Amino acid sequence: MMKGKRKIGVVAPASRMSLEVPARVQALAAALYPDRTPEIHFHPQCLAAHGHFAGDDASRVRAFLEIANDASYDAVWYARGGYGSCRVAEAILRGLAEPARRKIYLGYSDAGMLFAGLYRAGFTGVAHGPVAEDILRDSGDAAAGRALAWLVDRTPETLEPTVRRGQKTAAFNLTILSHLLGTPLQPDLAGHVLMLEEVGEAMYRIDRSLFHVTSNPAIRQVAGIMLGRCSWIPPNEPDFAMTEEEVARYWCERSGIPWLGRADIGHDVDNKIVPFGEYHQADA
Amino acid sequence: MMKGKRKIGVVAPASRMSLEVPARVQALAAALYPDRTPEIHFHPQCLAAHGHFAGDDASRVRAFLEIANDASYDAVWYARGGYGSCRVAEAILRGLAEPARRKIYLGYSDAGMLFAGLYRAGFTGVAHGPVAEDILRDSGDAAAGRALAWLVDRTPETLEPTVRRGQKTAAFNLTILSHLLGTPLQPDLAGHVLMLEEVGEAMYRIDRSLFHVTSNPAIRQVAGIMLGRCSWIPPNEPDFAMTEEEVARYWCERSGIPWLGRADIGHDVDNKIVPFGEYHQADA
Repeated sequence: MMKGKRKIGVVAPASRMSLEVPARVQALAAALYPDRTPEIHFHPQCLAAHGHFAGDDASRVRAFLEIANDASYDAVWYARGGYGSCRVAEAILRGLAEPARRKIYLGYSDAGMLFAGLYRAGFTGVAHGPVAEDILRDSGDAAAGRALAWLVDRTPETLEPTVRRGQKTAAFNLTILSHLLGTPLQPDLAGHVLMLEEVGEAMYRIDRSLFHVTSNPAIRQVAGIMLGRCSWIPPNEPDFAMTEEEVARYWCERSGIPWLGRADIGHDVDNKIVPFGEYHQADA
Repeated sequence: MMKGKRKIGVVAPASRMSLEVPARVQALAAALYPDRTPEIHFHPQCLAAHGHFAGDDASRVRAFLEIANDASYDAVWYARGGYGSCRVAEAILRGLAEPARRKIYLGYSDAGMLFAGLYRAGFTGVAHGPVAEDILRDSGDAAAGRALAWLVDRTPETLEPTVRRGQKTAAFNLTILSHLLGTPLQPDLAGHVLMLEEVGEAMYRIDRSLFHVTSNPAIRQVAGIMLGRCSWIPPNEPDFAMTEEEVARYWCERSGIPWLGRADIGHDVDNKIVPFGEYHQADA
């Protein structure tokens, strides 16, 4: 299930990547794959700065298209999330050429804005999973190594444990999915197991976003919802008196969407891979 | 443009009202309308507590319907915003009877969830404007007095200055409108001047919500967008390098929605009245 050397392009359609990431990731890749070290190209745009973003909208679009439309690359890897993909998604989708369809794409959180649009446009290689910047977390090599295992070999062991052949899946940050509902980026998730994770949002916001997502008629066609980890929840004033799982169960019950339990995804080093669509093994 | 004594019911479909509000509001009403003091009934539910909410979902629904479906009331006034209207909107809309259609409704912020649904259901008396709790702000009598002037006499001087006959309007908290897009609460705002205000959201969130709102095909049918005040914006990390007006202009430009300037609404005592639909004067 592997070919020779993979070529991976790293781009940052949202926030700026940290300076130390490339050396850390290259060293890890060399250690994990000594005889077939993947070629990992960090586009210089990853380190650009323009207000909140890794460069202005036009340069982020350009960088993404350079890598995605270059047939020599096997994969496009998000440098990090943050914020900004919604500003560039439309122009990127308009600019993608045929070689872009044969690639795999990996990222999560803010990346969901663009990945939703890619998946809607029929791209079959999109997956939720760690970004390059995750290597800077405590024990971050585990996250980056998992990403590399997916990018290099599409190793099944990297998958969220419930992902299986014959069952479509998708994974989103809850707030990101909420903010693309009713836009041209919203993909058809009918029949999918929808996994949702959250970070840094108060309980009343988690509840409100779950209202939003589960009230959307198209989302109600999913096969079910699984809740990933909701981390760094700030204190709710007053105490919300319900946990994230209780509110997820509540909105599933109320909307008639099957509740399928917890998913092994989140803003942490244990964040697993979730393909958009049906899992299929790598081409040899 | 006035009849005798108005009867106003105050309910709290979202967060709990503060204990001191009724006495303050009653005193103000008596001072402003000594010869025809409106009868203001604060439903006991306003002071109930259930986690984040002014009582559990069922009791908030019940309280709202008791007032709205009672023909003796002229108006339904939101005690305060906060959070919780999305949880009760569906049951309230299902339970409303004919007397509810002849009333006026006043509130803002979280109230937008329910007001969107009321307006969609053909209610003509819905308006954005101060809640009872606003009397506790510095110089809060101005806000509460404006609300009373609308509730008692539908005084044109309380209106946002650009509101005029022959032009449909609507006003929302930006985050609230974002979170009802693509749900059965989303009203048809084609041809409306849409006024948006925000409070307590970082610039990247304001930008993201404006992406969301202006990317919705139905919202693109509005006559234009006006931006109210965006207050208590927490620091953006890194600095966002654009103001809320710059991002609003940007998304208007990008989406083809006419930018119509600033609106005199916001989470403050100057918050003006904005009818949902076309402004029409009070029945005598």
